[in-house]
Amino acid sequence: MTTPRRSIATVCLSGTLEDKVGAAAAAGFDGIEVFEPDLIASPWSPAELAARCADLGLSIDLYQPFRDLDSTDPDRFARNLRRIERKFDVMAQLGTSTVLVCSSVAPDAVADRGQLAEQLAAAADRAAERGLRIAYEALAWGRHVSTWDASWDVVRRADHPALGLCLDSFHVLSRGGDPAGFAAVDRGRIFFLQLADAPHLEMDVLQWSRHHRLFPGQGAFDLPGFLVHVLDAGYDGPLSLEVFNDVFRQADPGRTAVDAMRSLLWLEDQVAAARPDLGLPARPAAPRLTGYSFVELSVDGVSGPLVGDVLARLGFAHTGQHRSKPVQLWEQGGARVLVNASVVRPAATGVAEVAALGLESEDPGRSAERATSLLAPLLPRTRGAAEAELAAVAAPDGTQVFFTRTVPDGWPADFLPTGTPSGGGTGLAGVDHVGLTQPFDSFDEAALFYREVLGLGPDDVTEIPAPFGLIRDRAVTNADRTLRLTLTASLLRRGGWAPRVPAPQHVAFRTDDIVATARALRDAGAPLLTVPGNYYDDLDARFDLDPAQLAAMRELGLFYDETATGRFLHLYTEVLGGRVFFEVVQRIGGYDGYGAANAPVRMAAQRRARLAETAAAG
Amino acid sequence: MTTPRRSIATVCLSGTLEDKVGAAAAAGFDGIEVFEPDLIASPWSPAELAARCADLGLSIDLYQPFRDLDSTDPDRFARNLRRIERKFDVMAQLGTSTVLVCSSVAPDAVADRGQLAEQLAAAADRAAERGLRIAYEALAWGRHVSTWDASWDVVRRADHPALGLCLDSFHVLSRGGDPAGFAAVDRGRIFFLQLADAPHLEMDVLQWSRHHRLFPGQGAFDLPGFLVHVLDAGYDGPLSLEVFNDVFRQADPGRTAVDAMRSLLWLEDQVAAARPDLGLPARPAAPRLTGYSFVELSVDGVSGPLVGDVLARLGFAHTGQHRSKPVQLWEQGGARVLVNASVVRPAATGVAEVAALGLESEDPGRSAERATSLLAPLLPRTRGAAEAELAAVAAPDGTQVFFTRTVPDGWPADFLPTGTPSGGGTGLAGVDHVGLTQPFDSFDEAALFYREVLGLGPDDVTEIPAPFGLIRDRAVTNADRTLRLTLTASLLRRGGWAPRVPAPQHVAFRTDDIVATARALRDAGAPLLTVPGNYYDDLDARFDLDPAQLAAMRELGLFYDETATGRFLHLYTEVLGGRVFFEVVQRIGGYDGYGAANAPVRMAAQRRARLAETAAAG
Repeated sequence: MTTPRRSIATVCLSGTLEDKVGAAAAAGFDGIEVFEPDLIASPWSPAELAARCADLGLSIDLYQPFRDLDSTDPDRFARNLRRIERKFDVMAQLGTSTVLVCSSVAPDAVADRGQLAEQLAAAADRAAERGLRIAYEALAWGRHVSTWDASWDVVRRADHPALGLCLDSFHVLSRGGDPAGFAAVDRGRIFFLQLADAPHLEMDVLQWSRHHRLFPGQGAFDLPGFLVHVLDAGYDGPLSLEVFNDVFRQADPGRTAVDAMRSLLWLEDQVAAARPDLGLPARPAAPRLTGYSFVELSVDGVSGPLVGDVLARLGFAHTGQHRSKPVQLWEQGGARVLVNASVVRPAATGVAEVAALGLESEDPGRSAERATSLLAPLLPRTRGAAEAELAAVAAPDGTQVFFTRTVPDGWPADFLPTGTPSGGGTGLAGVDHVGLTQPFDSFDEAALFYREVLGLGPDDVTEIPAPFGLIRDRAVTNADRTLRLTLTASLLRRGGWAPRVPAPQHVAFRTDDIVATARALRDAGAPLLTVPGNYYDDLDARFDLDPAQLAAMRELGLFYDETATGRFLHLYTEVLGGRVFFEVVQRIGGYDGYGAANAPVRMAAQRRARLAETAAAG
Repeated sequence: MTTPRRSIATVCLSGTLEDKVGAAAAAGFDGIEVFEPDLIASPWSPAELAARCADLGLSIDLYQPFRDLDSTDPDRFARNLRRIERKFDVMAQLGTSTVLVCSSVAPDAVADRGQLAEQLAAAADRAAERGLRIAYEALAWGRHVSTWDASWDVVRRADHPALGLCLDSFHVLSRGGDPAGFAAVDRGRIFFLQLADAPHLEMDVLQWSRHHRLFPGQGAFDLPGFLVHVLDAGYDGPLSLEVFNDVFRQADPGRTAVDAMRSLLWLEDQVAAARPDLGLPARPAAPRLTGYSFVELSVDGVSGPLVGDVLARLGFAHTGQHRSKPVQLWEQGGARVLVNASVVRPAATGVAEVAALGLESEDPGRSAERATSLLAPLLPRTRGAAEAELAAVAAPDGTQVFFTRTVPDGWPADFLPTGTPSGGGTGLAGVDHVGLTQPFDSFDEAALFYREVLGLGPDDVTEIPAPFGLIRDRAVTNADRTLRLTLTASLLRRGGWAPRVPAPQHVAFRTDDIVATARALRDAGAPLLTVPGNYYDDLDARFDLDPAQLAAMRELGLFYDETATGRFLHLYTEVLGGRVFFEVVQRIGGYDGYGAANAPVRMAAQRRARLAETAAAG
């Protein structure tokens, strides 16, 4: 197989059929599966849909689903044959040759494999007369046929040239099916392949399938392993996505289609790397990213001075000024923060936010090329004379991602030295991680973006019972944990009560001695968060902490966590400009997390600080 | 038991502990359970919390949860005893006597019942020394103790006066436990009762519990039966709600607390009616409601004439004019629509919406009294001379609910006859149902409101895969199905892509001959929805319809549904003023639904009509 055809079922996308077809074409898909309810609700006749798709360069690869074909009741089976013939009429107009028939869930479903094969063959006869074919799929919750090998047994018995298998990764993997068994399927009998990932959930498989499917690379299934087995079995048809997901169903279909395409490219990359002999197109691996070269905050006339003041109290020094833009470089240890006042907003709102991440790449040009080839929007840059060329793409949440090399003639050359030496008095040594709040609709899209476009590995999803609703947290990191990014979103989109508490982003710096750092910050008047005494009483109950250490933590407002592999101390500032706060962390031993258990206490404390500020102002 | 004490766990409510305590007091609760993480995140010391609660008239009935007390590792058990002693310190400050200890989920949990009883007794010894007591609860996912009878076995073996049971309806009923067994529990050994309802879900019980609990009367569990068994076993402590729910976690805690209180009142009403001997306070049953006396639409200067024009084309006549307000009465058959232009908005936006429902009550005064006793806000009314007194309360979505008697000296007397006789040319005979779109946060609250406040019965929840996301639908009706209301909400709150398609409300009228009605409406130029031809091709495939009937349906844009008990034909208008459309339905035989399967086709068609209108205007 060379470059495979890439398809998407219209049910993956939100909107009307007209919206969906446009989104699939714009994201570069080669074909679609027409999900019947989408067609039924459309004003386009099947022939009109075919014409629109042809105009857009989309083939129609499958018509689906046809349900409950077989029946132990001869009259009903006759009616079902009449029903499928009507659908053959539709397919003829659509110009598509394959219909998905899924295993029956009806009370009158046929249990006897021989009789079932006969009925499918009878339908296949009628299909063949019209040059059509039937792809039979085992629904994981089918009444008598619920595993792929049962569906193959039926297809094998029927032995009809117009009857083959549709394999769906969700139906196979959710039931613990073994794709290695596909090797036993006769060549050419896999008529269609549907791909979907999913998180591991212990729940009714029908509900799991209808609400929680994900695109490949977003869930927990081994999709690359699955696809290898399907290709080894000789399948050379489209790779087609069929994902039922509550969020995608209501999110912008244009974005979802791009996310979907990226998931197929990720999948192909994995398979191409693991099994070059299969001949999938090979894309070079993502260049290695080694850490943050800088974090850029966007400020305005109100928040700019505030952020500068806090950075100074955190021990940063204003070491450089951009040659052509109102951008300051602040440095301490290996940590660099850019404070950018160049975005002029209609009114100074006092907002500060993380606008850009500088990621140190072993090959910035190739990082940018890879990103654009994976549909990340390349951002336009204005560049002055003597300024370094910086390639940047937009992450799903709009954050600008720069690929950099921090060398003298690289991006630092854009900054004229102020003459002030780098700070260092508080012991901050670098950026530990950046925390970005994600839009509700694009949490899974973001994880896949960082995984495929940047080559970062996603950790498991953590759920945090925060004061204003459940929060979902997921870190993506490079292999040696020198580049860490945490993605956060509400489990439910926030409503009328919660927006009084916007979910802020943060930048976390690392130190090797958080007690010394905290004392220095306190002495410098940094706006450290006040932590409730109850928190320390609970720490005392839960952990065997040295009393002096506990007293220092209580005095300085330090948070604590420990695991079997290490310990974690951290502190927070109040929220600045409504959107950003700073964190300082010390990792001891092999602690690899982010102190998630402390997040609710931090959020409640930040809200109190905000309310107090509002009260003082009002 | 006389009036029971009513409590709520702080975990039921969104916000900080400060928010939660205020909300619980405002809704009239007598006490709270302090959920430990809420206290840990609070700046109030335990003593301060106790003082605040005392000021608000709230007792602190429980401190919870204490996890993983027992251990097969003696060192760890010793540390756990130290940990619980620290929590006893907190309880002493709080002034609460009971701590919830839940069965361990840890790998080192004690399996041996005798050893487990010993360890619990050791903790109870320490509690007793300080005048405290332990309520032991079987988590449904506990490692060795996961059923209430296992927890009772352990408590019985320990035989310690400071050790009793905490019964939680979710943990008992989710595992299929039989509350009749409570009769075997020694008197006085049920130390605490936690109440939660839940929908029937087939999923991991931990996830079910953490995300999907509901207040009593909102789910599928038999809470009244459960409570009867607990009271029969001699329990006379607080009735306390403990509900973990993703929506409530992020919704306005003031509203949630009112919803919660209403759920306890519902529960008490059910038990008082079923078992008067238990001595719960008896509230008279809700007066019988028999149907809609009117539906009131709120319009402005732009939408008013539009709505009037459409009503005229639907065959309604403007029969009356309000004595003192700009409100028109339109009538046809038994259907009455009020068109109210009295709400002056800052600008005429062209919006029309359902503002009020007139519900015919056998005793309007008592209906209103009941509603206010159940915390429904009574709406202020201005009343002219010679005008009828109308009592109205606000439903959770803000819709005004009037309790009426349609008699000559009742509300119709507020309207001066225009001299035009009631319409009737199109055959509309009355209101079949009204469909109200619910705010995301208050879907379950609304169902409980109509159930408890108005005495309507809720049907099952239906899920509809609509073009812009999954929709949840639930009807509430009176016993003889002459009053039907459908409540609709998105499964997920809608985001940036979806609001271009607001979810509209509707008023459905009934006819006995929809074909004749549809022809009359078409001839009158009513803005009927254009239904895609594909829809009829699919009907033809699915049903054995008479060709002439199918042709008429296709010609007139009729929708169709059938069940084992009957058939349903219906049609829709386009959406008027962005928020309201009309439906006409004909029920044949015992059809009892609302044609939910057709909703996606209707929604897509209404969107097309809107886009076409916008395009024409632009």
